Amino acid sequence: MNLLEQLCKIHAPAGNEKMLSDFLINYIEQHKVQWKVKPEVLYGDEFQDCILLVFGKPKTAIFAHMDSIGFTVRYGNQLVTIGGPDVKTGYKLVGEDEQGPIECTLTYDAEEGELTYEYAREIERGTELVFKCDFRETEESVQSCYLDNRLGVWSALQVAETLENGIIAFSCWEEHGGGSVSYLSRYMYEQYGVKQGLISDITWVTEGVQPGKGVVISLRDSLIPRRSYVQRIVAIAREAGVPYQLEVEGGGGSDAKELQRSHYPWDWCFVGAPEDNVHSPDEIVHKADIASMVSLYKVLMEKL
Amino acid sequence: MNLLEQLCKIHAPAGNEKMLSDFLINYIEQHKVQWKVKPEVLYGDEFQDCILLVFGKPKTAIFAHMDSIGFTVRYGNQLVTIGGPDVKTGYKLVGEDEQGPIECTLTYDAEEGELTYEYAREIERGTELVFKCDFRETEESVQSCYLDNRLGVWSALQVAETLENGIIAFSCWEEHGGGSVSYLSRYMYEQYGVKQGLISDITWVTEGVQPGKGVVISLRDSLIPRRSYVQRIVAIAREAGVPYQLEVEGGGGSDAKELQRSHYPWDWCFVGAPEDNVHSPDEIVHKADIASMVSLYKVLMEKL
Amino acid sequence: MNLLEQLCKIHAPAGNEKMLSDFLINYIEQHKVQWKVKPEVLYGDEFQDCILLVFGKPKTAIFAHMDSIGFTVRYGNQLVTIGGPDVKTGYKLVGEDEQGPIECTLTYDAEEGELTYEYAREIERGTELVFKCDFRETEESVQSCYLDNRLGVWSALQVAETLENGIIAFSCWEEHGGGSVSYLSRYMYEQYGVKQGLISDITWVTEGVQPGKGVVISLRDSLIPRRSYVQRIVAIAREAGVPYQLEVEGGGGSDAKELQRSHYPWDWCFVGAPEDNVHSPDEIVHKADIASMVSLYKVLMEKL
Repeated sequence: MNLLEQLCKIHAPAGNEKMLSDFLINYIEQHKVQWKVKPEVLYGDEFQDCILLVFGKPKTAIFAHMDSIGFTVRYGNQLVTIGGPDVKTGYKLVGEDEQGPIECTLTYDAEEGELTYEYAREIERGTELVFKCDFRETEESVQSCYLDNRLGVWSALQVAETLENGIIAFSCWEEHGGGSVSYLSRYMYEQYGVKQGLISDITWVTEGVQPGKGVVISLRDSLIPRRSYVQRIVAIAREAGVPYQLEVEGGGGSDAKELQRSHYPWDWCFVGAPEDNVHSPDEIVHKADIASMVSLYKVLMEKL
Repeated sequence: MNLLEQLCKIHAPAGNEKMLSDFLINYIEQHKVQWKVKPEVLYGDEFQDCILLVFGKPKTAIFAHMDSIGFTVRYGNQLVTIGGPDVKTGYKLVGEDEQGPIECTLTYDAEEGELTYEYAREIERGTELVFKCDFRETEESVQSCYLDNRLGVWSALQVAETLENGIIAFSCWEEHGGGSVSYLSRYMYEQYGVKQGLISDITWVTEGVQPGKGVVISLRDSLIPRRSYVQRIVAIAREAGVPYQLEVEGGGGSDAKELQRSHYPWDWCFVGAPEDNVHSPDEIVHKADIASMVSLYKVLMEKL
Repeated sequence: MNLLEQLCKIHAPAGNEKMLSDFLINYIEQHKVQWKVKPEVLYGDEFQDCILLVFGKPKTAIFAHMDSIGFTVRYGNQLVTIGGPDVKTGYKLVGEDEQGPIECTLTYDAEEGELTYEYAREIERGTELVFKCDFRETEESVQSCYLDNRLGVWSALQVAETLENGIIAFSCWEEHGGGSVSYLSRYMYEQYGVKQGLISDITWVTEGVQPGKGVVISLRDSLIPRRSYVQRIVAIAREAGVPYQLEVEGGGGSDAKELQRSHYPWDWCFVGAPEDNVHSPDEIVHKADIASMVSLYKVLMEKL
């Protein structure tokens, strides 16, 4: 989990994923020699800050978003949200402007709905602030800000080690309006004919989805995936004997939104571990669910 | 109207249009020999569950969505909506899970905003339920759930009988976020240069649109089509002497949303009969409006 | 500012930009001989009512939307909005239907939220009404309806005079759901490999953005542009010594929405003068901000 901790600490709010992207490119270049199949690594100008790993003859793509929620400094000491962070007075926020590194405190006035920071000096307009990482690990769980979605990224990297055929896409902006999966999905479809997607992301513990009961296969959220595709995934999970839970929600979304609305006939399904304390500095995930997440992805990338 | 009744009874909530798609492919293969022009019938993996009928040298495409509104079983006896169904305690819902066919009753708690079902046993998570079909026909009207949009599909099949040039597209997901017209419209534009769209769907009876007064040409809904295109359609209708009504709304939408936002320069216009008791088991449409809908489509596909 | 006044007076609500498009094509054909580089002028059926000017070897595109907010006549004397106009009883509205030119008065019933017009006769269903133009110029400012975005169009035309490499796109529907930038951006990317966008539009005076303090570079609105791109723009502005202000908002949007969601990897940044009395007949912009807007665009089109 050392790698996961490193990932959680990298500054990468939506729109500024550059540092995490650079870290991953480095990691991949260093480790790919030990992987079962050495993927083609695609990045650079045509992909903005995204990364594609292409293994063998791909049929299915894993999408893991790199970006996190956070805050942008507005005018005075006001803050505007990046994505939908949990807001509570006292949360520690970190960032950097031209005057140097920053560690400040969030203040939330629920009555006025106002978000501000407390800090010794004024922070430059437009500076991004993210939760300060306090990574905690027990025998049973990991806890930190940004398990959503550094854990989805981490899981994809585990899958990469033995992957023979498939694509892994590290995407941007998922937490704030999307914007990269549209062009990534076009590229994959046009270059490789790939149109099966799996969303490697973190979902919510609810009354129907409990920690430790296995990776979640989502039957729907605010959008509804094509039923026949989702049913194939459930059947593969069942046959493989990997612990899994079925989710049914009316809200929420993921990188899949862009696949659903794509000009190319993509199928998609959200497959990921559930977390509690969503979008807070204290996101917590059960290790058993992480294990079944990685296991299920390995099976799916082979059989789907 | 026997065909319409059959269409209304087929289970095809958004995301699971397979059965209606199969029915239509069968119907088309059986009947196309009697049609004036035998279309190319496109379906299969590259089109998910959609169908394209390509007649002659197409210039204009009809879009008729196959999917319906409905409900997904969540946890316990909770329901989540598919699209925006009318909800009233007592509505009969039907579906099927691994334990067999289901006929249950909808309960709506308006205070809590909670939707549940009443049934002798627990229904499997993720099962889709739709309104039970009670098809009623009089001399003047048809009444059933899902006239929206089985009537739009039915009308397109009538038009198919004599169509010489054009495309008919049977689409998916219209009631719940869209997702198929994006790729269908790309395909049509790239393969055939087609970029004129007509939305064969059902609209609402309002203070400005009355039953029996003719098919509706919508000048706008939540989106605004290009005025010059809509004006051409109105001029053709006027010249042809087909009864029609002009609609102007600030809300509502259709498959046209995806044409409007397309990467290809599509024009679109909604042309369809109005119904009362929208999205309920008792949708009702005047037969005169059905007749003028079919008539207007025949003229438009020739002259537009 | 005579040209600006002419632009402000042309009827071009979202969806019916034809008259402004025709005016611009005329203007461009007449004036391009005096420009430093004669652009290729692209318009016609494949571009609906949009226009593209392609200069030299383009790397960056300016997007200036032609359309305005307004009202559509519904049933009786009801009105439906086009985009988000300011509504106040007494505003003068103009338009035309088959019975002739119209000048009527807006009535807004805040309690019922109802918009109606007062006029001697009933106006035909679907007729578009826009604010009556009262163009006012002082030494310091211009004031009129529709500075948003005739000023963005006007600024782009100033830039055109000396532009050597780049594209200027005049777009449609920005005020009401978008719909043209999607296909324009695809075309530019496919034909010219262009994927750097600048949004030539008008923003708001706020507590952080004041009239007369320079053109606004927006660091974000409801969407977040890629940080590295925006930082390059700020650096160029700083180095060039053009007066500018940085904006940070949580709401609002522009033609950039379609670039962000594009199937092609576009970068974008909103760069434009701020106005007060937004979306009213009395929009006002400081002349110093107009001057710095034109200056900054000239530098950016060269250095970006």
